Amino acid sequence: MKHLLVCLASFLALGTLHAQEPADYVNPFIGTTNFGTCNPGAVCPNGMMSVVPFNVMGSEDNKYDKDARWWSTPYDYTNSFFTGFAHVNLSGVGCPELGSLLLMPTTGKLDVDYRNYGSKYEKENATPGYYTISLTKYNILAEATATPRTGLSRFTFPKGESNILLNLGEGLTNETGAFMRRVSDCEVEGMKVLGTFCYNPQAVFPIYFVMRINKAPKATGYWKKQRPMQGVEAEWDKDQGKYKLYTQYNKDIAGDDIGAWFSFDTEEGEQIEVAMGVSFVSIENARENLDKEQSGRHFAAIHQEARQRWNDDLGRIKVEGGTKDQKTVFYTGLYHALIHPNILQDINGEYPQMEGDKILTTKGNRYTVFSLWDTYRNLHQLMTLVYPERQMDMINTMLDMYREHGWLPKWELYGRETLTMEGDPSLPVIVDTWMKGLRDFDINLAYEAMYKSATLPGKENLMRPDNDDYTKLGYVPLREQYDNSVSHALEYYIADYSLYTLAKALDKKEDAKLFYKRSMGYKNYYCKEYGTLRPILPDGKFYSPFDPKQGENFEPSPGFHEGNAWNYTYYVPHDIKGLAKLMGGKKPFVDKLQMIFDKGYYDPANEPDIAYPYLFSYFKGEEWRTQKLIKELLAKYFTTQPNGIPGNDDAGTMSTWAIFSMMGFYPDCPGVPEYTLTTPTFDKITIKLDPKYYGKDQLVIETMNPDSESDYIKTIKLGDKECGYRINHNDLIKAGSLQFWKK
Amino acid sequence: MKHLLVCLASFLALGTLHAQEPADYVNPFIGTTNFGTCNPGAVCPNGMMSVVPFNVMGSEDNKYDKDARWWSTPYDYTNSFFTGFAHVNLSGVGCPELGSLLLMPTTGKLDVDYRNYGSKYEKENATPGYYTISLTKYNILAEATATPRTGLSRFTFPKGESNILLNLGEGLTNETGAFMRRVSDCEVEGMKVLGTFCYNPQAVFPIYFVMRINKAPKATGYWKKQRPMQGVEAEWDKDQGKYKLYTQYNKDIAGDDIGAWFSFDTEEGEQIEVAMGVSFVSIENARENLDKEQSGRHFAAIHQEARQRWNDDLGRIKVEGGTKDQKTVFYTGLYHALIHPNILQDINGEYPQMEGDKILTTKGNRYTVFSLWDTYRNLHQLMTLVYPERQMDMINTMLDMYREHGWLPKWELYGRETLTMEGDPSLPVIVDTWMKGLRDFDINLAYEAMYKSATLPGKENLMRPDNDDYTKLGYVPLREQYDNSVSHALEYYIADYSLYTLAKALDKKEDAKLFYKRSMGYKNYYCKEYGTLRPILPDGKFYSPFDPKQGENFEPSPGFHEGNAWNYTYYVPHDIKGLAKLMGGKKPFVDKLQMIFDKGYYDPANEPDIAYPYLFSYFKGEEWRTQKLIKELLAKYFTTQPNGIPGNDDAGTMSTWAIFSMMGFYPDCPGVPEYTLTTPTFDKITIKLDPKYYGKDQLVIETMNPDSESDYIKTIKLGDKECGYRINHNDLIKAGSLQFWKK
Repeated sequence: MKHLLVCLASFLALGTLHAQEPADYVNPFIGTTNFGTCNPGAVCPNGMMSVVPFNVMGSEDNKYDKDARWWSTPYDYTNSFFTGFAHVNLSGVGCPELGSLLLMPTTGKLDVDYRNYGSKYEKENATPGYYTISLTKYNILAEATATPRTGLSRFTFPKGESNILLNLGEGLTNETGAFMRRVSDCEVEGMKVLGTFCYNPQAVFPIYFVMRINKAPKATGYWKKQRPMQGVEAEWDKDQGKYKLYTQYNKDIAGDDIGAWFSFDTEEGEQIEVAMGVSFVSIENARENLDKEQSGRHFAAIHQEARQRWNDDLGRIKVEGGTKDQKTVFYTGLYHALIHPNILQDINGEYPQMEGDKILTTKGNRYTVFSLWDTYRNLHQLMTLVYPERQMDMINTMLDMYREHGWLPKWELYGRETLTMEGDPSLPVIVDTWMKGLRDFDINLAYEAMYKSATLPGKENLMRPDNDDYTKLGYVPLREQYDNSVSHALEYYIADYSLYTLAKALDKKEDAKLFYKRSMGYKNYYCKEYGTLRPILPDGKFYSPFDPKQGENFEPSPGFHEGNAWNYTYYVPHDIKGLAKLMGGKKPFVDKLQMIFDKGYYDPANEPDIAYPYLFSYFKGEEWRTQKLIKELLAKYFTTQPNGIPGNDDAGTMSTWAIFSMMGFYPDCPGVPEYTLTTPTFDKITIKLDPKYYGKDQLVIETMNPDSESDYIKTIKLGDKECGYRINHNDLIKAGSLQFWKK
Repeated sequence: MKHLLVCLASFLALGTLHAQEPADYVNPFIGTTNFGTCNPGAVCPNGMMSVVPFNVMGSEDNKYDKDARWWSTPYDYTNSFFTGFAHVNLSGVGCPELGSLLLMPTTGKLDVDYRNYGSKYEKENATPGYYTISLTKYNILAEATATPRTGLSRFTFPKGESNILLNLGEGLTNETGAFMRRVSDCEVEGMKVLGTFCYNPQAVFPIYFVMRINKAPKATGYWKKQRPMQGVEAEWDKDQGKYKLYTQYNKDIAGDDIGAWFSFDTEEGEQIEVAMGVSFVSIENARENLDKEQSGRHFAAIHQEARQRWNDDLGRIKVEGGTKDQKTVFYTGLYHALIHPNILQDINGEYPQMEGDKILTTKGNRYTVFSLWDTYRNLHQLMTLVYPERQMDMINTMLDMYREHGWLPKWELYGRETLTMEGDPSLPVIVDTWMKGLRDFDINLAYEAMYKSATLPGKENLMRPDNDDYTKLGYVPLREQYDNSVSHALEYYIADYSLYTLAKALDKKEDAKLFYKRSMGYKNYYCKEYGTLRPILPDGKFYSPFDPKQGENFEPSPGFHEGNAWNYTYYVPHDIKGLAKLMGGKKPFVDKLQMIFDKGYYDPANEPDIAYPYLFSYFKGEEWRTQKLIKELLAKYFTTQPNGIPGNDDAGTMSTWAIFSMMGFYPDCPGVPEYTLTTPTFDKITIKLDPKYYGKDQLVIETMNPDSESDYIKTIKLGDKECGYRINHNDLIKAGSLQFWKK
């Protein structure tokens, strides 16, 4: 058996040299600068744990420093000062959170001030589930890998005095405060307070951990930054305002800025492994997660397991043709799409109640990190198609949140509703899933939950605080200069259109009528003078003076959130034809949309307008514009470089835009089970389907004349029948194949 | 049964109005200013818990503020800004420590900043085991009582919005950092880091607590002082640098400055009780202590029990005659002498290992807070005589510390050796106890421990770091300007004299010879030129320039610690006759000693010279000086006023000086079982003896002609035999009576 394992390990190791596995095409450095806010750390697909190099503090050379500006990622490619591995991180988000439990190796005299102990580095590399870096200051090789709920770091030290530091005081989160207890010379356990995501002061939650080192230190202790004292008091306490080293105290410690240190005499090349288990329930669960997921195995075995998980998941889509770079963009995008939502429950099934203090137990996977204003647009559609078992658990998670908290999620983070961004994004996600035939959830409860947020008065309505205006007027008037009122309403419209769709499907005729009518309320905002949507004042008049361009580059804009009128005007994906009619028909619609691209009003870095390129394809004869733009946008904004994502990846949403676009179909209207088609990047795309959900095991998308030099589509066949540029998901599955003929 | 209890309660309540109980003579406000560092809080005899008004922070009107100067007590009588009840405090010490878990009632809008929520007060009163205060800002009556390990506070609120705050951020201790967990709406549990006593940075230890309120709040949450942010970061976080209120987060919280708040709607006169259990082992033990000691009983029952404990203990000495004020001084002194050492073990017997991380279990009482440089002089002698069962447990505690840590204690604090002050003070305590016939401990182990600290080289010697010089030269030379070298050596001499005494008793002749010789080394320091002890330089010459007065009022002095040559020159209590010989005989000895008093060189506020007045009585015909001085010193320095203790009470040492002095006998040489006699303050003193230790149940001291107006003694009878001015403890016990005839 042992021999077999050795053979297997050799095979896997060799495998990385020879056959190209999907993981070989992933470049985790893509999206790690240019505000992509991805990171190159070690993580498993949809895993709770990620072990991420933290390089955004402690050096004046940092271009991006967490304390010097709004900063939301533990790592930026352009920085160069490593201050440890952060455990549990967010990928591709726009607010600072998590990124704590910082683990750092050093050599020489113990120094626990990160401004001193941080190091420049070289030989940085990353593959799915693995990260490595060489610390030039110390000549230490640091490596990291992960299981779903635990991290494992391996440090290769030079000969001499070496140290391992666990810093609980710093992190990306704006919360502070930690508690730690020593279990043995080699093990500490504790908790840290996290939260205040997007400066929501009450969205606070604890993380619990157990950290274990595989070598007994020659000395170990704690540190704590002491509060500054004034006057005579300061004279007596030599540690005031400094990091005090606790050399003889090994019981419970707590404070804003504490840490643990471990010192060793190491031989040249000696490797020490540090395992970290976490839980959002308890220290006990963190330990069980660690014990069960690592089972005392060493680094190589954990790394290989993580890599295998990625190959299994990435391998659900096989692409042929295209360049190596295109494959890299594609599989890295898929990698990013498989990070959030991530599992929340411990290995024993326990998880923290949504917005409550209970500890509950789940049967399936309980997910967290629902950045729904982003991900409802395409990521859940990708899950539904390729990872339906996960999408099913995500839907059931959302319904359980309703059971526990009374609300479906908006922007859920580790059991807290952070209420970030606006709208009612769970509705399209659930309806989209249902309409695509994934129905293993309580649709009546789901309808109850959706109906609640659609109809409850604003004061009691967590999802739609301006619901009184909305239901009475059909729109939300601008009551404060920067109240994002139009953006709010646009989200309600699409949510209500989903609700209409479901009501109709459930034969709730009156409801269907009501919500359809509401979903059409967007027309109130249409201003003929500018040809855009425009904020409306409480007296019913349009807001003046009005500039449709105001709001570029995240500057504030009356009525619009993170965008301007151009970025939002076409965001009525459920009624593109109706919008065109308002605008005077196809030509003005198409001309204006083309103008948006031509004049650079299109913002590829944020969600509201990301489906714009697909809207041309609603109109016969204009589909080429979609095909042209998608090719151009992919080439320009999605590259293999660290800046190869146009802005925040938004928990995988930007990456998913590229994934669908490269496969030749895109779900441009959340809640409507349809795709708009465009020229695929690859010659052949084989998607493994789950027969349990889809009755068959694959979907094949092919370019039938790949050698054609044209970028444009001549004809498309769905199964054996020619089809148009928008197809239904269920028809696609039924057909099992989609064939493109280029011109 | 219920009826009986009601009757009993009424009887006890009435009892306080009629018959004078010992507790009626206690005025807990004595020693609460003038640096007495006593406090008027509620405590049980030798109890772990004390509930003490905290009035030394938050107001610019504070004459004494913990953050503005060296300040070592939670309460000063002259301050007037109440910021809560502190749980577990030190009494009569000179370094800041403990005084945390601050419990405060307020009314109106929640404000968790102590600078705002503190209140002026009136109607302050205290009796043993009970304290009450009326908060004028809020019209709240606050009361406190205690069991040995738990506190109970009762707040009587006006009608309206009321709050209870638990502040874990502030306290007397210079350590910070706490952790808290919510058990229910009415209960929180947690820990706080304490320590750094006398600015020893490694003497750190945890306190665990469970706090329970007997009414469910209408709202409850936490607070935490947020760390200040700079620049743009500060703009985003509205709580930065402020006390942030957590209104929706109720899981684990940790930080430097955290608290819990509870809000209520109260009726006029509504009483809410808050119980606090503590432990130095664990939260679980804190809860068990609370459950078992309070058993859900209400305030009146707990208060009566505490009072009864005091009456039982104080009642072991009955004094007759004397003024009411003298009785007040006496019983308040006895009250102060019965606060430290206090029990450390939980109700299940568990306690933290001395200087280690283990949790151990004791059979007897495990004591802590051994301020031995102070208490070895008289407090343990009082325990031996009147509370021998406690002294026995204290000795066994000291030996267990040796078993656990390898050293007898010097200044032990909750399991940590703080190494405060100098010398080897356990030796006289143990030998004194043994010589007085309390021998229920392992004397061989004790000898081993004493021998170790007397003989181990300085480098390895925790008690005697300068043992190399001492054993080689017979004295400790001055190697640094303020190294306290003479003070060190003087402590070693008396310790070695004790060791000589024991070696002799154990028939260890060679050892006896060695340690006797060492104990006489003080003679090296005697300088004929000045007639005082004088520091010696490493080259063997006396230190120059020399001023025997340098060191008054706690200014630094070469060679002497907290005093000058005058305060130390007569501190060779084991060889008074030898010292007199050095000085040229009785007359120069007496004249110089009298001069010390006449010129005001005597410092009644610190330990080194407190036995000086008794030294006259070694010389026939000079005993009147002792009698005169003791009467004068008692009258001048020990009064019923808040400033009625001359300086730090030093964990009861100053109070014990008054107690013995008022009873007419004083143990002026620790380790030698003898008393020097003086005129008793009272006509009759009846001391209950424990027959288990002394074979009889009382000792009676009488002034046979109390109506005499003379302050001077004519004759004394020990039993039925006339005796001199120094008597042996064992003779006194044997006789059972001591009779004074005044002139």
